[in-house]
Amino acid sequence: MKINFLRSKIIQIFEKHKLSKKHSKVCADYLIKAELIEAKSHGLTRLKMYCNRIKKKLINPKPKIKIKRISSSISYVDADNSIGFVSADIGVAQAIKNAKKTGVGLVAIKNSGHFGLSSFYAEQAVKKNLMVFCFTNAPPALAPYGAKKSLFGTNPICFGAPTGKTPFILDTSTSIINRGKIRHAHKFGKKIPYGVALNKFGKITTNAREALNGTQLPIAGFKGSGLAWMVDILSGVLTGSSHGGKTKDPFDDFSGPQNVGHLFITINPKIFIGNRYIKEIKKNIKLIKKLPKAKGFSSILYPGERKNNLYKKNLNKDILIPRKILQEMVELNVVK
Amino acid sequence: MKINFLRSKIIQIFEKHKLSKKHSKVCADYLIKAELIEAKSHGLTRLKMYCNRIKKKLINPKPKIKIKRISSSISYVDADNSIGFVSADIGVAQAIKNAKKTGVGLVAIKNSGHFGLSSFYAEQAVKKNLMVFCFTNAPPALAPYGAKKSLFGTNPICFGAPTGKTPFILDTSTSIINRGKIRHAHKFGKKIPYGVALNKFGKITTNAREALNGTQLPIAGFKGSGLAWMVDILSGVLTGSSHGGKTKDPFDDFSGPQNVGHLFITINPKIFIGNRYIKEIKKNIKLIKKLPKAKGFSSILYPGERKNNLYKKNLNKDILIPRKILQEMVELNVVK
Repeated sequence: MKINFLRSKIIQIFEKHKLSKKHSKVCADYLIKAELIEAKSHGLTRLKMYCNRIKKKLINPKPKIKIKRISSSISYVDADNSIGFVSADIGVAQAIKNAKKTGVGLVAIKNSGHFGLSSFYAEQAVKKNLMVFCFTNAPPALAPYGAKKSLFGTNPICFGAPTGKTPFILDTSTSIINRGKIRHAHKFGKKIPYGVALNKFGKITTNAREALNGTQLPIAGFKGSGLAWMVDILSGVLTGSSHGGKTKDPFDDFSGPQNVGHLFITINPKIFIGNRYIKEIKKNIKLIKKLPKAKGFSSILYPGERKNNLYKKNLNKDILIPRKILQEMVELNVVK
Repeated sequence: MKINFLRSKIIQIFEKHKLSKKHSKVCADYLIKAELIEAKSHGLTRLKMYCNRIKKKLINPKPKIKIKRISSSISYVDADNSIGFVSADIGVAQAIKNAKKTGVGLVAIKNSGHFGLSSFYAEQAVKKNLMVFCFTNAPPALAPYGAKKSLFGTNPICFGAPTGKTPFILDTSTSIINRGKIRHAHKFGKKIPYGVALNKFGKITTNAREALNGTQLPIAGFKGSGLAWMVDILSGVLTGSSHGGKTKDPFDDFSGPQNVGHLFITINPKIFIGNRYIKEIKKNIKLIKKLPKAKGFSSILYPGERKNNLYKKNLNKDILIPRKILQEMVELNVVK
């Protein structure tokens, strides 16, 4: 499907679900962005989920989002149960503003929902020449180290930095693979890799449904578990949002809004060394890229480069939409 | 050896190496702290290294440390090649002050050296009721994903948060095991675990010397490599310090000062939700601790608890010092 046509269709669907034109455009752009960087688990496959939650009044299509100013660096956003894309979009814009003014920005968002990929927001800050951390929590998927039941989300750590060229954007879940990938495998009847998840009896499984009902494995045992716990504290506890396994699964828990929390930290990278920053980061990347390559590698990419290459490659192509999702889209556009 | 006696001996050694009484005490306390939490790789085993670097004029025993105020939140410390303990101690105190005043503190330190464990500094901020990130770089130990040569340090990610009880302190290197542990194994002729390091030909090795000459493996492949790169940017590039593999190894590179960089970010956790913070973090920990335990676990510990337990256990005992280190201490106290 042509990107522009797809965009107009998604906007239409969200407008039918009572989102404003402006918010519908924000959501459409992020969903398409996920498709273009081939993060399909965060793209159109979630459209029906978002619409379901709007219909069930768990996402507020007409949120009154309030930004409370705590200082010129710090702001607190009450998302009023908006769709995550919209509140995170507002939140990161505020974090950019704060860091531009004072050198450092800190913005917490409460009463939000799933916001797609953290890298969406990191990229905006980096394009405004800022460093940025983005933290968000997510529904239970990982067992804390020493437990046999899932509690943490796949809680990503996301960090961005300007490079003078393609943004450096690390966006890594603390699970071995993203939950979205398991959901996607489940939706399309595919297997998941060996060694990334356990079934509910604690045995390794490659069956996506069993993995969803069981628990995913954190990276590096107690290290990954500790990192996921850190993200739960930063995005859940600190922001006054859900935490400790209380973030509802957007796909199958309709008992209330998700109450997801997000935290953005923005830093002006010139604050200490001025214009030397860009010179140094370029030197850093150059030094690393020219290292002798390991077997099977022709180049060393920094985080964010691969996705940026995919984006550019796919930008002038049509987006292939699986029949199942096409059908969902038709239904979402008709039924109200 | 009795802790107090050991402390006086270490102070004596540092004073003989021209450190002020005040700075000698700071260094002694951190080295003893490392011993008490059984992080022996960061304790007395490094005493000779620090003294060697002072003798070779690579660590400045009488640094003129300057703190530049950038805003009430942001400070920039020039450590004047001090021993890392001293400048990091000053830096974290400033980061605490800044966050107490404004809610968020950001302190960069340049021209510093190895500062022991990040958790030393995180703990101070947490004890003042602040959340904290500590970042530092380190000499090459890890190959970037796709490279076959070490460039990143074991670049730890350290995060602390107040809990109302024992501080939550995650301090995790981005390598599978700490380099200090490999050095320690090397010093005492022990093997290292399988699968944590490669020799210089790219083969897995359990020989500590081969590992030191080869490369350590990052946690979770490109994820750990990306996290190490993030830490290199935050503590090296941003702070105007060494980066891109240019941080000198304190043990065997005497071609110049290390020029290590540190970054502290401090956050008042009450800034968004006030006194509810402590209630929520306690709830968070309680929810996680009561999860059903995995096989072989009788309890779930949060990051920092195990080390705190060791500290309390060892505080009233003598410290056992290997003969090799005792001898080093005798020599350091005599020879000048």
